[in-house]
Amino acid sequence: MFVVKAARIYGKEDVRIENVALSEPQDDQVQIKVKYCGICGSDLHAYLEGWGLPTIPHPLTGKTVPITLGHEFAGTVVKVGDRVKDLKVGDAVAVEPLIACGKCENCRKGFYNFCNNARAKDGAGNFLGFSDDGGFAEYANVDEFFAHKMPQGLAYELGALAEPTAVVFEAIKKSSLRAGEDVVVEGAGPIGLLTAVLAKLAGANHVFVIDVSEVRLNKAKELGLKRILNPNQVDVSKEVRKECPNGVDVSFEAAGVQATFENALKLTKRTGTLQIVALFGKPLKVDMTNDVIMQGVDIVTTLCYNNSYPEVLGILNNHRELFSKIVTKKIPLAAVVEKGIKALATEKDQVKILVSPEV
Amino acid sequence: MFVVKAARIYGKEDVRIENVALSEPQDDQVQIKVKYCGICGSDLHAYLEGWGLPTIPHPLTGKTVPITLGHEFAGTVVKVGDRVKDLKVGDAVAVEPLIACGKCENCRKGFYNFCNNARAKDGAGNFLGFSDDGGFAEYANVDEFFAHKMPQGLAYELGALAEPTAVVFEAIKKSSLRAGEDVVVEGAGPIGLLTAVLAKLAGANHVFVIDVSEVRLNKAKELGLKRILNPNQVDVSKEVRKECPNGVDVSFEAAGVQATFENALKLTKRTGTLQIVALFGKPLKVDMTNDVIMQGVDIVTTLCYNNSYPEVLGILNNHRELFSKIVTKKIPLAAVVEKGIKALATEKDQVKILVSPEV
Ligand SMILES: [Zn+2]
Ligand SMILES: [Zn+2]
Ligand SMILES: [Zn+2]
Ligand SMILES: [Zn+2]
Repeated sequence: MFVVKAARIYGKEDVRIENVALSEPQDDQVQIKVKYCGICGSDLHAYLEGWGLPTIPHPLTGKTVPITLGHEFAGTVVKVGDRVKDLKVGDAVAVEPLIACGKCENCRKGFYNFCNNARAKDGAGNFLGFSDDGGFAEYANVDEFFAHKMPQGLAYELGALAEPTAVVFEAIKKSSLRAGEDVVVEGAGPIGLLTAVLAKLAGANHVFVIDVSEVRLNKAKELGLKRILNPNQVDVSKEVRKECPNGVDVSFEAAGVQATFENALKLTKRTGTLQIVALFGKPLKVDMTNDVIMQGVDIVTTLCYNNSYPEVLGILNNHRELFSKIVTKKIPLAAVVEKGIKALATEKDQVKILVSPEV
Repeated sequence: MFVVKAARIYGKEDVRIENVALSEPQDDQVQIKVKYCGICGSDLHAYLEGWGLPTIPHPLTGKTVPITLGHEFAGTVVKVGDRVKDLKVGDAVAVEPLIACGKCENCRKGFYNFCNNARAKDGAGNFLGFSDDGGFAEYANVDEFFAHKMPQGLAYELGALAEPTAVVFEAIKKSSLRAGEDVVVEGAGPIGLLTAVLAKLAGANHVFVIDVSEVRLNKAKELGLKRILNPNQVDVSKEVRKECPNGVDVSFEAAGVQATFENALKLTKRTGTLQIVALFGKPLKVDMTNDVIMQGVDIVTTLCYNNSYPEVLGILNNHRELFSKIVTKKIPLAAVVEKGIKALATEKDQVKILVSPEV
C-alpha cells in the first residue's frame, strides 16, 4: 500500500486531484505506472452530468464514487501478482478497461462486454474509470486478462489510443465492411474520425465524412480523408450519389441525433448496413416499415469491444504516423479538468487529449 | 388470348369478379391453371386501404389498377413459352410472386426482393397481385424464373402455402437461429404461427407464442406449440424467465405495434436477436442507447424472400400433415371478398383461407 496522485470524481462537476492509497496488486493483477491516459467523451458526460457513475455499490467491484476517472491508458508494468504468467516487470501494456465476471453466459461466449453480472442497477458503466479506479493516476492495478502487451517500440501515446480505436474496430467488424465497399461516416468527432480512418485502412473505396464543423472536417483532411461534406454547404445526398448512385454499402452513425440517423439511413443503399457507433441521448423515431424493412437496411449496434486489443495494437503499430495525428494535446494530471475535459467540450479542433501523470 | 374469370381490384373496397382477356404466355413464361391461391393480410390492406396498389404505371410492368389480386398461388402448367426450358405442360408449380428486373445491383446479388428497378414512386408492391396480375383467377401467366416445380405428390393446397412459408423461412434464416436456441414469437396470426412452427422445425428449444387472443393461442396448441402465453392472463416476462433466465436468443416480432416491439426487446437476452417479421403501421419509438446498444440486441428485418422456394417446398413436403392444419377454409373465387378477405378481418380462428378458382 502506498500513496499515489489521482483525479477522483465525486459526482457531477466534482473532480479532485488527491493522494489516494493504492493497494498491492491482487494475485491475477499487474500494477502499472501510467504513461498516458486519453480523455473520452464519456468522461465529459461523467463530469457534466454524473453519467455512468456508481451511486450504489457496483455488483462486481463493490465501489461507489469517489472513483479515479480515465479508461484509455497505457503504462509500464512495475509489479506482478503471484499468479501472473505472461507479463513481467518492465513490459509496456495497453489496458482494456472492462469489468466482467468471466463466468456468466456472455463472458463464456466471449461477449464479456455484455457481462450479465456487471450490470449495475443505477446504470454505472462496467469500465475502469467508472465502476473501478482508472487511469488518471500515477499508478493503477489492472487484471492481467485485460493488460495487453504492446508491440515492441510502439509509443505509449499510441497505446493510449487502443481503447477508442477498439471501439471503432468493433463497429467495423460488426458492420461486416469489406474492402472495396463504400462508406459514409456521420460526425467527425474523435470516434467518427477514427471510424473513417479505420474504414479506409480496411480497404473501403469511397469514404465520405459528414459534419457541420469546418474545423473537424479539416482535421479529417489532415488524416488523409478526401471526401468531406458539410451539409450546411452542399447537398450531401447529391454529392454521395454522384459517385455511389445507389448509396453506400455501410454508413456509420457517429453523431447520435435524430437528423444524422435519418440522413445515414437515406445515404445507405438498399440491403446495406447502418452501423451505430454513437450513443443517442434521446429515444429515436424510426419508420421501420418504409425506411428499414422496405429498404432492407440492417441497423447494427456495438457497445465497446471484445477480443480485439491484439488486432488493434497491430493496426496502431502499422500506422504510427497516421494515428499520431489523432493526439492533439498532452497535459499534466493536475490540468485534467481545466485543460482537458473542458477543452474537449469547447475546442472543436481537439481530437484526443492525453493526460500524462508523470509530468 | 382468351377470357378468364378473375377477381380484380380497382381501389379501396372495390373488388370485382370479371371476365378478363388473358394473353398468350411470353417466351420466358408459363401459363398456369390456378388450383389454389391463399388470402394474405396484405390483400386485406389492399382492400381496406388501397395499400400497395399501382395508381401510376409500375416501372417494370407498366400496369395500374385494375389488377388481379392474389399472390399465394399454385397450379398446373398448361402452356409454355418458346424459351421455357425446365418446365412442361402438366407440371405442378408454386409461384414466387415477385417482380424484378434481373439486372440491377440487387438482382445480381440475389437480392431480387430489393430490385432497384421495381420500386414504384407510389409505393405499389413489387408483387404479382399488386403491380401485375396475380392468382385470384382461373389462369395466370408467370415467369419460368418464378415458377417452382412442386415435389411429387405435394397437394396444391400446400403449394399455395409456399409464399407465406417463404416469408417466415427468410426471417428464420436472417435471424441466424440455431437448433437448441430459445425463441419468442409475438403475435399468433398466420405469420406468427408459421414462424413458431418453422422455429420448432429448425430445432429451437423453447418456443413461446404470445398473443391476447385465446382463439389464436388454441390454434397454436393445435399446431403442437406448447408454450403459449396470454399477457392478459400471465406475467409473460416471468413465465419466459422461468425457463430462460436471461431471456431468449431470438424473438420474432410478428404483431407490429409499439407494445409488442418493446415486449420482444425485453424478452430477448443481451447479445440476442430481435427479428422483425411484421410491418409496422406507425413509426416506432426506440430507446436505442438503453434498450438496444446497452443490451447488444441485433434488430433485423426482412422483406419477402429470395432463393428459398426449393427449401420451403421441401419443408412443406416433409411435414404435410402439420401444414395442412394451417388451411382453415376453402372458398370459390366468387366469394373472395365476402367469405375470404372480410372473414380474415373478423374471424380470429381463420389462419389461411384458400381461394379455388375451379369451384
Ligand atoms: Zn471512452
Ligand atoms: Zn460475466
Ligand atoms: Zn402475402
Ligand atoms: Zn432488379
